[in-house]
Amino acid sequence: MSNFDFTILKTSKKSLARRGIIRTPHGNIETPAFIPVGTQATVKGLTPEELESLDVQIIFANTYHLFLRPGEKIIKDLGGLHQFMHWNHPIITDSGGFQVFSLGAGLEQGVGKIASIFPEERLMQAPNSKFQIPNSTKSNRIKITEEGVEFKSHIDGKKILLTPEKSIQIQKDLGADLILAFDECTSPLADYKYTKKSMERTHRWAIKSLETFKNQKSKIKSQNDKLKCKNKQEIYGIIQGGAYKDLREKSAQFIGKLPFFGMAIGGSLGKSKKDMHQILDWTLPLLPEKRPRHLLGIGGIEDIIESIKQGIDTFDCAMPTRIARTGAFLTKKGRLNIFNSRYQSDKNPIEKECRCYTCQNYSRAYLRHLFWAKEMLGPRLATIHNLYFMSRLMKTIRENI
Amino acid sequence: MSNFDFTILKTSKKSLARRGIIRTPHGNIETPAFIPVGTQATVKGLTPEELESLDVQIIFANTYHLFLRPGEKIIKDLGGLHQFMHWNHPIITDSGGFQVFSLGAGLEQGVGKIASIFPEERLMQAPNSKFQIPNSTKSNRIKITEEGVEFKSHIDGKKILLTPEKSIQIQKDLGADLILAFDECTSPLADYKYTKKSMERTHRWAIKSLETFKNQKSKIKSQNDKLKCKNKQEIYGIIQGGAYKDLREKSAQFIGKLPFFGMAIGGSLGKSKKDMHQILDWTLPLLPEKRPRHLLGIGGIEDIIESIKQGIDTFDCAMPTRIARTGAFLTKKGRLNIFNSRYQSDKNPIEKECRCYTCQNYSRAYLRHLFWAKEMLGPRLATIHNLYFMSRLMKTIRENI
Repeated sequence: MSNFDFTILKTSKKSLARRGIIRTPHGNIETPAFIPVGTQATVKGLTPEELESLDVQIIFANTYHLFLRPGEKIIKDLGGLHQFMHWNHPIITDSGGFQVFSLGAGLEQGVGKIASIFPEERLMQAPNSKFQIPNSTKSNRIKITEEGVEFKSHIDGKKILLTPEKSIQIQKDLGADLILAFDECTSPLADYKYTKKSMERTHRWAIKSLETFKNQKSKIKSQNDKLKCKNKQEIYGIIQGGAYKDLREKSAQFIGKLPFFGMAIGGSLGKSKKDMHQILDWTLPLLPEKRPRHLLGIGGIEDIIESIKQGIDTFDCAMPTRIARTGAFLTKKGRLNIFNSRYQSDKNPIEKECRCYTCQNYSRAYLRHLFWAKEMLGPRLATIHNLYFMSRLMKTIRENI
Repeated sequence: MSNFDFTILKTSKKSLARRGIIRTPHGNIETPAFIPVGTQATVKGLTPEELESLDVQIIFANTYHLFLRPGEKIIKDLGGLHQFMHWNHPIITDSGGFQVFSLGAGLEQGVGKIASIFPEERLMQAPNSKFQIPNSTKSNRIKITEEGVEFKSHIDGKKILLTPEKSIQIQKDLGADLILAFDECTSPLADYKYTKKSMERTHRWAIKSLETFKNQKSKIKSQNDKLKCKNKQEIYGIIQGGAYKDLREKSAQFIGKLPFFGMAIGGSLGKSKKDMHQILDWTLPLLPEKRPRHLLGIGGIEDIIESIKQGIDTFDCAMPTRIARTGAFLTKKGRLNIFNSRYQSDKNPIEKECRCYTCQNYSRAYLRHLFWAKEMLGPRLATIHNLYFMSRLMKTIRENI
C-alpha cells in the first residue's frame, strides 16, 4: 500500500466543498488546508517548532530558488529538504514553472496571477509597467522552447536551462512529499493564440514530467527499493489555459486523464476575482473527483472561502507572511496596519479573542514600536499572528463542511 | 528591608574575582554576569521566553533610544518596560550619557570605548575618520554644557536636551530595576585637560542624578507608597577619568563615597586592552568592596575573563548579538564566519558539544544557506547560539571562582 492517499471524509450539502485528508510519509494534511510559503527552505523568521505550534500542516518551497541556492545536490547530501530545514512534516515543492512567468512577463508587465487589479497582491512591482496586452510572453529575461525554459539566474545572471526532466530531477533531490509537473504559467495579458500554444506545450511537459517521475521510480534493484522509492513522493499535474473557457476545459480533461496523484490549477486567473471563480467553475467539474485539488498562489481570505465552495482542497500563498513583514496583521475585521498612529498607546492585543502567542503577550503599542524601530521581532510576531489566523480560519472552514 | 541587595558569596583565592548575587524586585542575578543588550526594548529577534531558555538573567536597554522612540511616557502608560516588552526579569537602563560620546566624538572620530584598535568593535564606522587627536569632544552634533547635553535626534533631527534630572525622570518612567547616573563618556582621543573638565562635570551630574533619584523617592504620601517607591529601583554611579591615573583614582574615590547602590566603570578605556586592564587596576581597589561593579560596554571573551579577575561583577555588550547578525558565531576556537565556503555542505552543528537550540537542530550548511539567502531565521539562530555561548561561559566562570 502506498504511503500516499487522499480520502474525502465529507462533502457539503450547500456547495461543492469537501473535507478530506491527504496522507503522506511525513504526516497527514487535513483539507481544506492553507499552505504557508517557505521559498528558501524557511518560513520567514519562524522555527519549525513555531510552525507546529501554529497548526501548520505542510509548507510550500520553491524549486527554482533552492536549485540556484544552495543547490539541490547540497540539500540531497544533507538528507533532503526535511532534514536540511529541520521540518518533519509534509512539504510540497513547485516545479520552477511559475518563475517562467514571475521573472519574465510578470516582472516586465507588472502583473500577478490576476491581472493588475490588486496592486498589493502583485508579485513584484515593475516600474516601467505599461499594461499593454502583448501577443506572447516573449521576454528578454526568459527564453521558452519545446525543450524547456532558459533563465538568467536572479542571483548571478548565469544562464540556466530548466526542462521537465531537470525540474523533476531537482524535485526528486529536494525530496518534498508532493511535487509538481513542469509547466508554463502564462500571463493574464497573453492572448488566446499564445495561451493555447503554451498550454499544449505544458501538456507535453506534463507527460515528460510524469515519465521522468515514473522512470526514476522504476530504477529499482529489489522489492525493498521499490517500496521505498514508490512511497517517497507523489506528483501533481497542472492545469493551464488562461482565462479561456475552451482551453481550461481542454486542459482539465487532458491533465485529469493522466495518472497524477493530484491536480493543481495554475496560470492566469483572469482580470478579476469574478474571472477567477468563473475559471474554477469551468475547470473543477471536469477533474477526477477523488484526487486532491490545489489552487496555486492564491490565498486571499475571500478567495479561499469562495474557492473551497467550488471544490478546491489546498492553497499556497505568500500573502500572510509577506504582509506580516510590512506590519499588516490579518483580523476578522480586515487588515490592521500597525504603523498607524492610532495604535501608539494602545494596550490591546491585535485581536482580543485570538489565542496566538503574539496576541497573548503583546500590545499593539509594543508591536507598533517594534515596526517603527525596524526590530526583527516585529515581523516575527506578525508572521506568527497571521499564520495562526490562517490556521484558525481553515479549521473553522473544515468544521463547517 | 529593601528589595535590593548585593551579596558576595565567595571570593577567589587566586585573583580579585568574586561570586555573588544581586537581588532585585524582578529576580536575582548571579554574578559575574553578562548582560545582553536590548537597546529598543527587544533583544534582536528573540522573545523573552527564548532569553529565559538561554539563561539570560537581565537585559540592558538604552534610555536615549527609548526616550526618542516610542517615548518614556508611552512605556510608562503601558505599565513600564517589563510589561511593555513582556520581560519579567531584571532590566538595567543606561542614562543616555554614552550617546553623548557615541553620536558625537565616537561617530566623528570613528572610535569606540577603546581607541581604534579593534575596527570590528567600533560602534559605528565614520567614513571621514582621520584619527587625529582633538583637544576636546566638541562636536557639531552635540553641545555639552553644565546643564546637560543637547542632541539632535538621530530619528528626526529634532533638538533635545538631556540633563541629569531629565535622564533620571526618563529612567523612572521606563521603570528598569537598575538605573545609571547621567554622565559624559569621553573619547579615548580626548586630552587630559578636557577629560578632567568633563569628569568634574560628571561628578556634579552624579550628585544631581542622586538628588533627583532620592527626591522622587521622598514624594510619598503614605508608608505603603514609601515602601513601594523605595523598592522599585536602584541607581549606579559612573566612574570616568579616561586613561589618566590620577583622574581615575579621583573619580573612583568621589563616586565611591556617594550612596549609590552600585558602581559602573564608564568612559574611555585607553588605546589597548592592556590600557583597559591598567585602568581597572587603578580604579577597582578604591571602590567600596561590597557594592556591585559594572563594566560598561565591554564584552569580548578575553576582556570579560581578565576583568572578572580584577573584580568586575557585571558586563553589558552588544557584541554577541551584533556579530550574530553578520553571520559570526562564537565558539571555543574563536569566531566562526558562516559565510565561508568551507561550510557549504557541512553537516556538523556550529559546535558539537553545544546544547543550544541552534546546535541541536541545524547544520552549518543550513545556517550558511540562511545567511546567504538573507533569511531572518539566520540572525535569529546565530543570536540564540551566541547568547547561549555567553551564558555558558559565565556559568563556567562562576563555578570556577
